[in-house]
Amino acid sequence: MADLGVLSAHLLADFQRQLHTRVADAGFDGLRPRHGAVMAYLDLGGTRASDLADRSGAHKQVIGTLVDELETLGYVARQPDPADRRAKLVVPTDLGRRQIAAARAFVADIERSYAERIGADRFAAFRDVLTALAAPTRPSP
Amino acid sequence: MADLGVLSAHLLADFQRQLHTRVADAGFDGLRPRHGAVMAYLDLGGTRASDLADRSGAHKQVIGTLVDELETLGYVARQPDPADRRAKLVVPTDLGRRQIAAARAFVADIERSYAERIGADRFAAFRDVLTALAAPTRPSP
Repeated sequence: MADLGVLSAHLLADFQRQLHTRVADAGFDGLRPRHGAVMAYLDLGGTRASDLADRSGAHKQVIGTLVDELETLGYVARQPDPADRRAKLVVPTDLGRRQIAAARAFVADIERSYAERIGADRFAAFRDVLTALAAPTRPSP
Repeated sequence: MADLGVLSAHLLADFQRQLHTRVADAGFDGLRPRHGAVMAYLDLGGTRASDLADRSGAHKQVIGTLVDELETLGYVARQPDPADRRAKLVVPTDLGRRQIAAARAFVADIERSYAERIGADRFAAFRDVLTALAAPTRPSP
Protein backbone atom coordinates (compact mmCIF):
# COMPACT_ATOMS: atom_id res chain seq x y z
CA MET A 1 0.00 0.00 0.00
CA ALA A 2 1.46 3.35 -1.05
CA ASP A 3 2.03 5.79 1.79
CA LEU A 4 0.47 9.22 2.14
CA GLY A 5 3.62 11.00 0.98
CA VAL A 6 3.81 8.92 -2.20
CA LEU A 7 0.07 9.35 -2.85
CA SER A 8 0.07 13.11 -2.36
CA ALA A 9 3.21 13.43 -4.51
CA HIS A 10 1.44 11.48 -7.28
CA LEU A 11 -1.73 13.56 -7.02
CA LEU A 12 0.33 16.75 -7.17
CA ALA A 13 2.32 15.45 -10.17
CA ASP A 14 -0.86 14.42 -12.00
CA PHE A 15 -2.49 17.78 -11.29
CA GLN A 16 0.61 19.72 -12.38
CA ARG A 17 0.96 17.65 -15.55
CA GLN A 18 -2.66 18.27 -16.53
CA LEU A 19 -2.42 21.99 -15.75
CA HIS A 20 0.88 22.34 -17.58
CA THR A 21 -0.51 20.62 -20.69
CA ARG A 22 -3.53 22.96 -20.80
CA VAL A 23 -1.40 26.07 -20.18
CA ALA A 24 1.06 25.09 -22.92
CA ASP A 25 -1.77 24.20 -25.35
CA ALA A 26 -3.24 27.67 -24.73
CA GLY A 27 0.00 29.18 -26.08
CA PHE A 28 1.72 30.29 -22.86
CA ASP A 29 5.25 29.47 -23.91
CA GLY A 30 8.26 28.58 -21.84
CA LEU A 31 6.47 27.81 -18.60
CA ARG A 32 7.45 24.69 -16.68
CA PRO A 33 5.42 23.02 -13.90
CA ARG A 34 7.95 24.36 -11.34
CA HIS A 35 6.89 27.95 -12.17
CA GLY A 36 3.60 27.20 -10.41
CA ALA A 37 5.42 27.88 -7.12
CA VAL A 38 5.36 31.55 -8.17
CA MET A 39 2.41 31.96 -10.58
CA ALA A 40 -0.07 30.09 -8.31
CA TYR A 41 0.64 32.42 -5.36
CA LEU A 42 0.99 35.78 -7.09
CA ASP A 43 -1.41 38.63 -6.23
CA LEU A 44 -2.40 40.75 -9.22
CA GLY A 45 -1.02 43.82 -7.42
CA GLY A 46 2.28 42.10 -6.74
CA THR A 47 3.77 39.98 -3.96
CA ARG A 48 7.11 40.04 -2.14
CA ALA A 49 9.45 37.14 -2.88
CA SER A 50 9.55 36.28 0.84
CA ASP A 51 5.75 35.94 0.87
CA LEU A 52 5.91 33.71 -2.21
CA ALA A 53 8.40 31.51 -0.35
CA ASP A 54 6.10 31.36 2.70
CA ARG A 55 3.00 30.56 0.65
CA SER A 56 4.58 27.96 -1.62
CA GLY A 57 6.90 26.38 0.94
CA ALA A 58 9.78 26.75 -1.52
CA HIS A 59 13.10 28.21 -0.38
CA LYS A 60 13.61 31.92 -1.03
CA GLN A 61 16.60 31.10 -3.21
CA VAL A 62 14.46 28.80 -5.37
CA ILE A 63 11.80 31.51 -5.65
CA GLY A 64 14.51 33.96 -6.75
CA THR A 65 15.60 31.65 -9.56
CA LEU A 66 12.00 31.07 -10.67
CA VAL A 67 11.28 34.82 -10.66
CA ASP A 68 14.43 35.38 -12.77
CA GLU A 69 13.18 32.81 -15.28
CA LEU A 70 9.63 34.24 -15.31
CA GLU A 71 11.02 37.76 -15.77
CA THR A 72 13.03 36.59 -18.81
CA LEU A 73 9.93 34.86 -20.18
CA GLY A 74 7.91 38.06 -19.73
CA TYR A 75 5.38 36.83 -17.14
CA VAL A 76 6.49 38.96 -14.17
CA ALA A 77 8.45 42.13 -13.44
CA ARG A 78 10.22 43.29 -10.28
CA GLN A 79 9.01 46.69 -9.08
CA PRO A 80 9.70 48.77 -5.97
CA ASP A 81 7.14 48.12 -3.20
CA PRO A 82 5.15 51.38 -2.68
CA ALA A 83 4.80 50.41 1.00
CA ASP A 84 8.57 50.07 1.48
CA ARG A 85 10.94 51.53 -1.09
CA ARG A 86 13.77 49.21 -0.05
CA ALA A 87 11.63 46.16 -0.86
CA LYS A 88 10.66 44.76 -4.26
CA LEU A 89 7.36 43.35 -5.41
CA VAL A 90 7.02 40.59 -7.99
CA VAL A 91 4.22 41.87 -10.23
CA PRO A 92 2.53 39.95 -13.06
CA THR A 93 2.82 41.61 -16.49
CA ASP A 94 -0.18 41.71 -18.86
CA LEU A 95 0.94 38.33 -20.17
CA GLY A 96 1.24 37.07 -16.59
CA ARG A 97 -2.28 38.27 -15.75
CA ARG A 98 -3.67 36.46 -18.80
CA GLN A 99 -1.81 33.31 -17.73
CA ILE A 100 -3.17 33.55 -14.16
CA ALA A 101 -6.76 33.97 -15.41
CA ALA A 102 -6.39 31.06 -17.84
CA ALA A 103 -4.77 28.83 -15.22
CA ARG A 104 -7.61 29.56 -12.80
CA ALA A 105 -10.15 28.34 -15.36
CA PHE A 106 -8.04 25.25 -16.14
CA VAL A 107 -7.77 24.42 -12.42
CA ALA A 108 -11.57 24.56 -12.06
CA ASP A 109 -11.84 22.31 -15.12
CA ILE A 110 -9.37 19.76 -13.69
CA GLU A 111 -11.17 19.73 -10.34
CA ARG A 112 -14.48 19.11 -12.15
CA SER A 113 -12.94 16.15 -13.97
CA TYR A 114 -11.71 14.70 -10.64
CA ALA A 115 -15.20 15.18 -9.15
CA GLU A 116 -16.71 13.33 -12.12
CA ARG A 117 -14.26 10.46 -11.75
CA ILE A 118 -15.10 9.72 -8.13
CA GLY A 119 -18.48 11.41 -7.55
CA ALA A 120 -19.26 14.96 -6.46
CA ASP A 121 -20.08 14.11 -2.82
CA ARG A 122 -16.97 12.01 -2.28
CA PHE A 123 -14.85 14.70 -3.93
CA ALA A 124 -16.33 17.44 -1.72
CA ALA A 125 -15.61 15.37 1.42
CA PHE A 126 -12.10 14.65 0.12
CA ARG A 127 -11.48 18.36 -0.51
CA ASP A 128 -12.63 19.23 3.05
CA VAL A 129 -10.21 16.74 4.61
CA LEU A 130 -7.40 17.83 2.30
CA THR A 131 -7.98 21.45 3.34
CA ALA A 132 -7.88 20.46 7.03
CA LEU A 133 -4.72 18.34 6.64
CA ALA A 134 -2.97 20.89 4.42
CA ALA A 135 -3.06 23.43 7.24
CA PRO A 136 0.48 23.05 8.53
CA THR A 137 1.08 21.45 11.92
CA ARG A 138 4.03 23.61 12.90
CA PRO A 139 6.29 22.02 15.48
CA SER A 140 6.55 24.02 18.68
CA PRO A 141 9.71 26.13 18.58
CA MET B 1 -10.36 29.00 -1.64
CA ALA B 2 -7.03 27.28 -2.27
CA ASP B 3 -6.96 25.05 -5.34
CA LEU B 4 -6.25 21.33 -5.39
CA GLY B 5 -2.67 21.82 -6.58
CA VAL B 6 -1.89 24.21 -3.73
CA LEU B 7 -3.60 21.96 -1.18
CA SER B 8 -1.83 18.79 -2.29
CA ALA B 9 1.50 20.65 -2.40
CA HIS B 10 0.92 21.79 1.20
CA LEU B 11 -0.06 18.32 2.39
CA LEU B 12 3.04 16.87 0.73
CA ALA B 13 5.26 19.58 2.26
CA ASP B 14 3.78 19.04 5.73
CA PHE B 15 4.20 15.27 5.44
CA GLN B 16 7.79 15.58 4.20
CA ARG B 17 8.69 18.06 6.92
CA GLN B 18 7.33 15.77 9.63
CA LEU B 19 9.05 12.71 8.17
CA HIS B 20 12.34 14.56 7.70
CA THR B 21 12.30 15.80 11.32
CA ARG B 22 11.75 12.27 12.65
CA VAL B 23 14.41 10.77 10.35
CA ALA B 24 16.97 13.44 11.35
CA ASP B 25 16.10 13.05 15.06
CA ALA B 26 16.72 9.31 14.74
CA GLY B 27 20.31 10.10 13.71
CA PHE B 28 20.17 9.52 9.95
CA ASP B 29 22.52 12.31 8.96
CA GLY B 30 22.73 14.29 5.76
CA LEU B 31 19.35 13.31 4.31
CA ARG B 32 17.18 16.05 2.81
CA PRO B 33 13.44 15.79 2.04
CA ARG B 34 14.29 15.58 -1.70
CA HIS B 35 16.05 12.23 -1.12
CA GLY B 36 12.61 10.72 -0.53
CA ALA B 37 12.25 10.54 -4.33
CA VAL B 38 14.81 7.69 -4.15
CA MET B 39 14.56 6.23 -0.64
CA ALA B 40 10.73 5.95 -0.69
CA TYR B 41 10.77 3.87 -3.89
CA LEU B 42 13.80 1.66 -3.35
CA ASP B 43 13.38 -2.14 -3.25
CA LEU B 44 15.61 -3.85 -0.69
CA GLY B 45 17.12 -5.95 -3.49
CA GLY B 46 17.85 -2.85 -5.57
CA THR B 47 16.05 -0.84 -8.25
CA ARG B 48 17.12 0.59 -11.61
CA ALA B 49 17.39 4.38 -11.78
CA SER B 50 14.87 4.42 -14.66
CA ASP B 51 12.32 2.62 -12.46
CA LEU B 52 12.96 5.11 -9.64
CA ALA B 53 12.23 7.91 -12.14
CA ASP B 54 8.99 6.20 -13.24
CA ARG B 55 7.82 5.54 -9.70
CA SER B 56 8.66 8.96 -8.28
CA GLY B 57 7.79 11.03 -11.34
CA ALA B 58 11.17 12.78 -11.06
CA HIS B 59 13.37 13.17 -14.13
CA LYS B 60 16.07 10.53 -14.61
CA GLN B 61 18.72 13.26 -14.40
CA VAL B 62 17.35 14.38 -11.01
CA ILE B 63 17.35 10.77 -9.79
CA GLY B 64 20.97 10.44 -10.93
CA THR B 65 21.99 13.46 -8.84
CA LEU B 66 20.07 12.19 -5.80
CA VAL B 67 21.66 8.73 -6.12
CA ASP B 68 25.11 10.38 -6.33
CA GLU B 69 24.36 12.27 -3.11
CA LEU B 70 22.96 9.19 -1.36
CA GLU B 71 25.99 7.15 -2.44
CA THR B 72 28.31 9.77 -0.92
CA LEU B 73 26.22 9.76 2.27
CA GLY B 74 26.46 5.96 2.44
CA TYR B 75 22.77 5.10 2.03
CA VAL B 76 22.94 3.40 -1.38
CA ALA B 77 25.48 1.75 -3.69
CA ARG B 78 25.40 1.17 -7.45
CA GLN B 79 25.84 -2.50 -8.36
CA PRO B 80 25.63 -4.41 -11.65
CA ASP B 81 22.14 -5.82 -12.30
CA PRO B 82 22.40 -9.66 -12.20
CA ALA B 83 19.57 -9.76 -14.78
CA ASP B 84 21.44 -7.49 -17.23
CA ARG B 85 25.16 -6.91 -16.77
CA ARG B 86 25.05 -3.67 -18.77
CA ALA B 87 22.50 -2.19 -16.34
CA LYS B 88 23.07 -0.94 -12.80
CA LEU B 89 20.90 -1.36 -9.74
CA VAL B 90 20.67 1.19 -6.96
CA VAL B 91 20.89 -0.95 -3.82
CA PRO B 92 20.40 0.23 -0.23
CA THR B 93 23.40 -0.31 2.05
CA ASP B 94 22.95 -1.58 5.62
CA LEU B 95 22.54 2.03 6.69
CA GLY B 96 20.01 2.56 3.88
CA ARG B 97 18.02 -0.51 4.97
CA ARG B 98 17.90 0.78 8.53
CA GLN B 99 16.73 4.17 7.25
CA ILE B 100 14.00 2.55 5.11
CA ALA B 101 12.70 0.50 8.05
CA ALA B 102 12.73 3.53 10.35
CA ALA B 103 11.03 5.76 7.74
CA ARG B 104 8.29 3.15 7.28
CA ALA B 105 7.51 3.25 11.00
CA PHE B 106 7.57 7.07 11.03
CA VAL B 107 5.19 7.19 8.06
CA ALA B 108 2.71 4.94 9.89
CA ASP B 109 3.06 7.20 12.93
CA ILE B 110 2.38 10.37 10.88
CA GLU B 111 -0.65 8.77 9.21
CA ARG B 112 -2.00 7.83 12.65
CA SER B 113 -1.62 11.43 13.80
CA TYR B 114 -3.56 12.64 10.72
CA ALA B 115 -6.29 10.07 11.40
CA GLU B 116 -6.54 11.31 15.00
CA ARG B 117 -6.80 14.92 13.86
CA ILE B 118 -9.78 14.39 11.57
CA GLY B 119 -11.28 11.07 12.70
CA ALA B 120 -10.46 7.52 11.60
CA ASP B 121 -13.48 7.09 9.30
CA ARG B 122 -12.99 10.39 7.49
CA PHE B 123 -9.29 9.66 7.12
CA ALA B 124 -9.98 6.19 5.65
CA ALA B 125 -12.43 7.68 3.12
CA PHE B 126 -9.91 10.43 2.31
CA ARG B 127 -7.16 7.86 1.76
CA ASP B 128 -9.40 5.85 -0.62
CA VAL B 129 -10.14 8.89 -2.76
CA LEU B 130 -6.49 9.97 -2.71
CA THR B 131 -5.47 6.50 -3.90
CA ALA B 132 -8.02 6.68 -6.74
CA LEU B 133 -7.00 10.19 -7.81
CA ALA B 134 -3.28 9.50 -7.50
CA ALA B 135 -3.54 6.82 -10.19
CA PRO B 136 -2.26 8.82 -13.14
CA THR B 137 -4.68 9.80 -15.92
CA ARG B 138 -2.25 9.44 -18.78
CA PRO B 139 -3.21 11.46 -21.84
CA SER B 140 -3.78 9.36 -24.92
CA PRO B 141 -0.63 9.40 -27.07
